[in-house]
Amino acid sequence: MTGMTHKDPINDCFLKACRGEPVSRTPVWLMRQAGRYMAEYRKMRETYPILEMMKNPERAAEVTMQPVRAFDIDAAIIFADILTLLEPMGLQLEFIPGRGPVFHNPVRDTADVLALKTVDPHKQIDFTLDAIRLSRELLENKIPLIGFSGAPFTLACYAVQGGGSKDFDEVRAWMFSSPARWADLMDRLTDAVTEYLLAQIDAGAQALQLFDSWAGCLSVADYERFAAPWTRKIFAALEGKVPTIHFSANGGHLLEQIADMPVSVIGLDWRVSPSQVMERIGTDRVYQGNLDPARLLASDEAALTGAAEVLENLKPAKGHIFNLGHGVIKTTPPERVKLLVDAVHG
Amino acid sequence: MTGMTHKDPINDCFLKACRGEPVSRTPVWLMRQAGRYMAEYRKMRETYPILEMMKNPERAAEVTMQPVRAFDIDAAIIFADILTLLEPMGLQLEFIPGRGPVFHNPVRDTADVLALKTVDPHKQIDFTLDAIRLSRELLENKIPLIGFSGAPFTLACYAVQGGGSKDFDEVRAWMFSSPARWADLMDRLTDAVTEYLLAQIDAGAQALQLFDSWAGCLSVADYERFAAPWTRKIFAALEGKVPTIHFSANGGHLLEQIADMPVSVIGLDWRVSPSQVMERIGTDRVYQGNLDPARLLASDEAALTGAAEVLENLKPAKGHIFNLGHGVIKTTPPERVKLLVDAVHG
Repeated sequence: MTGMTHKDPINDCFLKACRGEPVSRTPVWLMRQAGRYMAEYRKMRETYPILEMMKNPERAAEVTMQPVRAFDIDAAIIFADILTLLEPMGLQLEFIPGRGPVFHNPVRDTADVLALKTVDPHKQIDFTLDAIRLSRELLENKIPLIGFSGAPFTLACYAVQGGGSKDFDEVRAWMFSSPARWADLMDRLTDAVTEYLLAQIDAGAQALQLFDSWAGCLSVADYERFAAPWTRKIFAALEGKVPTIHFSANGGHLLEQIADMPVSVIGLDWRVSPSQVMERIGTDRVYQGNLDPARLLASDEAALTGAAEVLENLKPAKGHIFNLGHGVIKTTPPERVKLLVDAVHG
Repeated sequence: MTGMTHKDPINDCFLKACRGEPVSRTPVWLMRQAGRYMAEYRKMRETYPILEMMKNPERAAEVTMQPVRAFDIDAAIIFADILTLLEPMGLQLEFIPGRGPVFHNPVRDTADVLALKTVDPHKQIDFTLDAIRLSRELLENKIPLIGFSGAPFTLACYAVQGGGSKDFDEVRAWMFSSPARWADLMDRLTDAVTEYLLAQIDAGAQALQLFDSWAGCLSVADYERFAAPWTRKIFAALEGKVPTIHFSANGGHLLEQIADMPVSVIGLDWRVSPSQVMERIGTDRVYQGNLDPARLLASDEAALTGAAEVLENLKPAKGHIFNLGHGVIKTTPPERVKLLVDAVHG
């Protein structure tokens, strides 16, 4: 561990907001702020497939820095994948252009669950931990670095489905048909996620976001039965170490359950109304979000009026980290990202 | 118009529940109750492509009747597509196996909007109106027949995108970038939907469901700006004629806006908690839903315990029409559908 880890960066707005402390300006970062909408990124992708970019610490750190150099953002996020853990657990990963991640040997029965391997992140995901160390050096402590992982439910969705899906109908059916087998899978994923996130803190991550991208496909009662206990366990293991953020796309109906966890920041999908959310779970929380990314794609006016609404609506909250309500869309003009970031600060 | 239209069917549980009147048993029907999970349907599809089944009144009525013969359901729903209107408006439709509906000349600019044609449903969608008349004859007034259409927002999504999409990001951006052009498109779609639904009533539809399948991809504020006014207008035009139902997959965050419309029945997606919904918009309403269709796919136990929960949770409501929270999944065993329908009645 470097001494750097415990010293706040020069721009500490993001970390202060995470802790619910007063800030000099609303911090802003964007989910998928490093990605295909940037020419610098597309140029690298011409040479390297995505997995080779993620698995090479120098290249991953370089991509992490691209939006930091281009925009006045208040946090960097390490360039990695939410599904990274599944490969060392034994699932054969391939990114197929146009289809996204595909696992060639999905988890289908109890034997597949039992065959999943324990992960030593220091050995098997050393490339991301090294990328975190390298990014921290490149950032020169100017802004903080966020680490992350997919949450157990979302990892389970991909592991069982073997890839993406509209609503993971078959995965939910698999889950309902054997709750004990599901619990065993979730236990293993939870242990792996916890170890991986703790290793990211050791490597220098100053905050951690858990992406439960697909939790929203569960009903409230089934989220409480089949996902929440494991997510809660992870946040409990991280409590008091670094600020934590929860984000689930399309999970507006689950916010009561999420707010009940020991998490610092509640990420909001673009669909939910911040005012209604605060009516449900209070203003005494820190929220992250939630501009519709399609507004950023549409026009300067749509982006700026939408951003002004988000800022106004979240004023009553104890803390607000400005973000999109989902990742940057790949056809978004970078000039408009700059305009947005500056407008949020101004 | 036949005299039949104004006489309640022998089993009037569904219509009574729609009106909030007491019923002898909880009525049940299932979204996509006629479809690929039934061997009878798959057999017909071996001979006829889907559009040829929809456009032939005898075949469409036959498919409508398949679940009526197999299960003790309390309502039939005409076999048609939610996007039917777009073809006579000028969009070239093709169903591509594995991809779903594709429109070869999507709406992309103002000229495309202006070029959309006015639809005379009596002439151009006569096949569905005839299928309604024929189904009413085959039903012999034993149970009521539901008609339907896609709502303007969902029709607009497909018209602009030219097919399906994960979240219709580009359509939302198109909408944000020119609200006036969007309003013009929505006006035209709303007129067409209204005429089509009124024609369905004339043909014998005893209730109407508006499927706004994709409204859930809008934020609450943008739903109020870009979709709700048009949906509201349609329900206002239908008020007092036949009971109406609203359903939006993934639209749990929009229920306050939907409840504010002159609609008889509020359809609930499987994700939302009926108890939370009633806390938000009250018990003095009629709700339809909302078993997770993956429970019906999973096992008898998952289906029956889930159904019991839904029935129990919706007891305080003024009315409850049992349904899934989305369509029947195509690999669902028909025997389990029978088990579910009988369990809801028992």
